[in-house]
Amino acid sequence: MNAISDLRDEALLAERLLARFAEIGADPRGGISRPAWSEAETACHELLAEAGAARGLVSHRDAVGNLWLQPAGLGDAPAPACGSHCDSVPRGGNYDGAAGAVAGLLVALRAARAGVGLRAVALRGEESPWFGAPYVGTRAAFGLLDTAELAQPRRGDGVPLAACIARAGGDPAAACSGRPLPEITRVTSFWEAHIEQGPVLLDRGLPAAAVTAVRGHLRYPAARCLGEAGHSGVVPRHLRHDPAMAVAELLMDLDTLWARQDQEGADLVLTAGMLSTEPDAATPTRIPGEVAFSLDIRSADPAVLRGMERVLTDAAAGIGRRRGVRFDFGRAVRAAPVALDAARAAAIEAALPQPYAMASGAGHDAAEFARNGVPSAMVFLRNANGSHNPAEAMDIADLMAGVEALWRAIRQTA
Amino acid sequence: MNAISDLRDEALLAERLLARFAEIGADPRGGISRPAWSEAETACHELLAEAGAARGLVSHRDAVGNLWLQPAGLGDAPAPACGSHCDSVPRGGNYDGAAGAVAGLLVALRAARAGVGLRAVALRGEESPWFGAPYVGTRAAFGLLDTAELAQPRRGDGVPLAACIARAGGDPAAACSGRPLPEITRVTSFWEAHIEQGPVLLDRGLPAAAVTAVRGHLRYPAARCLGEAGHSGVVPRHLRHDPAMAVAELLMDLDTLWARQDQEGADLVLTAGMLSTEPDAATPTRIPGEVAFSLDIRSADPAVLRGMERVLTDAAAGIGRRRGVRFDFGRAVRAAPVALDAARAAAIEAALPQPYAMASGAGHDAAEFARNGVPSAMVFLRNANGSHNPAEAMDIADLMAGVEALWRAIRQTA
Repeated sequence: MNAISDLRDEALLAERLLARFAEIGADPRGGISRPAWSEAETACHELLAEAGAARGLVSHRDAVGNLWLQPAGLGDAPAPACGSHCDSVPRGGNYDGAAGAVAGLLVALRAARAGVGLRAVALRGEESPWFGAPYVGTRAAFGLLDTAELAQPRRGDGVPLAACIARAGGDPAAACSGRPLPEITRVTSFWEAHIEQGPVLLDRGLPAAAVTAVRGHLRYPAARCLGEAGHSGVVPRHLRHDPAMAVAELLMDLDTLWARQDQEGADLVLTAGMLSTEPDAATPTRIPGEVAFSLDIRSADPAVLRGMERVLTDAAAGIGRRRGVRFDFGRAVRAAPVALDAARAAAIEAALPQPYAMASGAGHDAAEFARNGVPSAMVFLRNANGSHNPAEAMDIADLMAGVEALWRAIRQTA
Repeated sequence: MNAISDLRDEALLAERLLARFAEIGADPRGGISRPAWSEAETACHELLAEAGAARGLVSHRDAVGNLWLQPAGLGDAPAPACGSHCDSVPRGGNYDGAAGAVAGLLVALRAARAGVGLRAVALRGEESPWFGAPYVGTRAAFGLLDTAELAQPRRGDGVPLAACIARAGGDPAAACSGRPLPEITRVTSFWEAHIEQGPVLLDRGLPAAAVTAVRGHLRYPAARCLGEAGHSGVVPRHLRHDPAMAVAELLMDLDTLWARQDQEGADLVLTAGMLSTEPDAATPTRIPGEVAFSLDIRSADPAVLRGMERVLTDAAAGIGRRRGVRFDFGRAVRAAPVALDAARAAAIEAALPQPYAMASGAGHDAAEFARNGVPSAMVFLRNANGSHNPAEAMDIADLMAGVEALWRAIRQTA
């Protein structure tokens, strides 16, 4: 086997890098674990730096530990950046993040050969399990963490985020300075490849797609419907206050609306991930007294989210009145949709062998760049079996299709 | 306070007897616990025997421990019997069963005064928690227990049923002889007063109602819907296999049919008492992989139960096909409806100040008599707060309305 420094073929280089990433992250309990700011994450950064160095790129870490690679001649000039993150969720898969970090290197090598100014970046800590929040490396580079976040213990070993940054040679204070690091201020546009975490590209037989937006959400993690418990055999229909039937009706009301929105082409997904009658009291012969449930409503269109919230409120009121129950939706968790740069998304779409564009249902570093005013673009790579699990499965050929589309779009919009 | 032997007023006698029953059954943890074949149950029988003896009734126990009271002159003559059970569920209420046992005594005293042949009976062990099955005293008197049932340990102290019967002075072998005890063979019709366990009479402002039938049921205690787990944000509608939405649709299909049946006057109640996404895996941002649920469908009409089973099967198949999920209903538990004696029910209804008849959603000793060929009739007594809980609440005036209706109907049909 050739050393990574010797590989001339891009696909082979990507394959070897990702194979080494997998070895580095191999969790003895199964799957891939590369914690944020861990030695495993750093080792991936070093592999990227080594591969870049062998091909003429210089690298350095910013003050919070993100890795930047560029031709020596680019200096401090403003330029596009391309990359993603190298951490994984605990016992996750090898491609979520890592594929995009490798793609960033490949695009940077093409740019260097073509004399186009561009940096690759490997971001720290994108996955939320480690410190309880996502995009930590990117938000740190924008100076947007707060001191409470710096004190967060890392899942697994409990090391606080501030100590993690310091151990990786960084300056925790820079992460919450309120000012973006110099490296970030030089990013004129951000480009990210990422495996698709859903089944759309596989289902459509497409290697890659442009991403138009990151869906926002309206989430109720702990909603309840309160009724009145009773004997299942003896309470007639008109005297029931049955929260199970009420929740079923609410879900069907939402589902019916969703079907209509879907036909009309509106962007929407809707999930009741948790449903539970009272664990200690429920039996088959008892009308439940209460049903706990969750709702996660996502859309790339803020108007769709607002509309769903109105419908939800109205439906719950009507069902509550008719069925003699009360809905308590509890805490609402909201995130606004993030539009990615439309011109750059169009350029990526046009650069694909079979043009296709779609919204992302999950958050990404690119959305965080976009939220902070950096024009950002993404390409999704076909992937089987979802993400955040050991069965993530991406073909290197699809990664190369994504690299090609990114590179064409970058040149075109430069 | 007068001794029970001195009370002339029926309502006062009923009140005092039930007050003593409550003292006997008072559970230090709260509520009333009178286990089947316990000393508490026997003490209630003895109070009834004492009250009967003071008023000219003789009593004896049959071979499985049920108490029978009659005028000495009745001898072994065939006659109607009136009564109910004295056991309660663990930490239950005071009236479920006991009200009907006291009503049996009052009716027997009226019959004795009027020279009408009739026995009162206090049955053992009607409640299923004690030995895992209901109507044990009545089924034992019909000789219908099996040896496995005799070996069942009693909840709480673990004493096997056979030993319980023997300790109460009975003969366990008689309980599974396959032949009814002599006392049962003399019952020409069985009459039972029982608190209503639902809210219908309270809602209608009626003191009592005739009972036409005991509902049968089609029950699936452990049904499941199997789909495919996924990320809530990234799987579009047409690629989902969401078991939560599928179960909601099934429940709404059944509910819609139920509403129609209800309008058409069909007897039906329907309950999903248990609903649960996978406790270890469910989160608000995950499409569930599986939903566990239960169904309890009850009707006094066997055709309605058969129709519901057909609809359920068809609906599950259609939803499964459309939503890409699979329903596994698991074990079905079936009980056929039991029709009580129509002429006697009509006589009870006609004897009420405001005639009303209804089906019973729960099982009763009277249904067990009916299943064994004894024409049987029941009157329901208004009761608040359901049954099997310490808040059962019955007015003595409503018990007296039931006694009056039973007595009139018995005389009319004698």
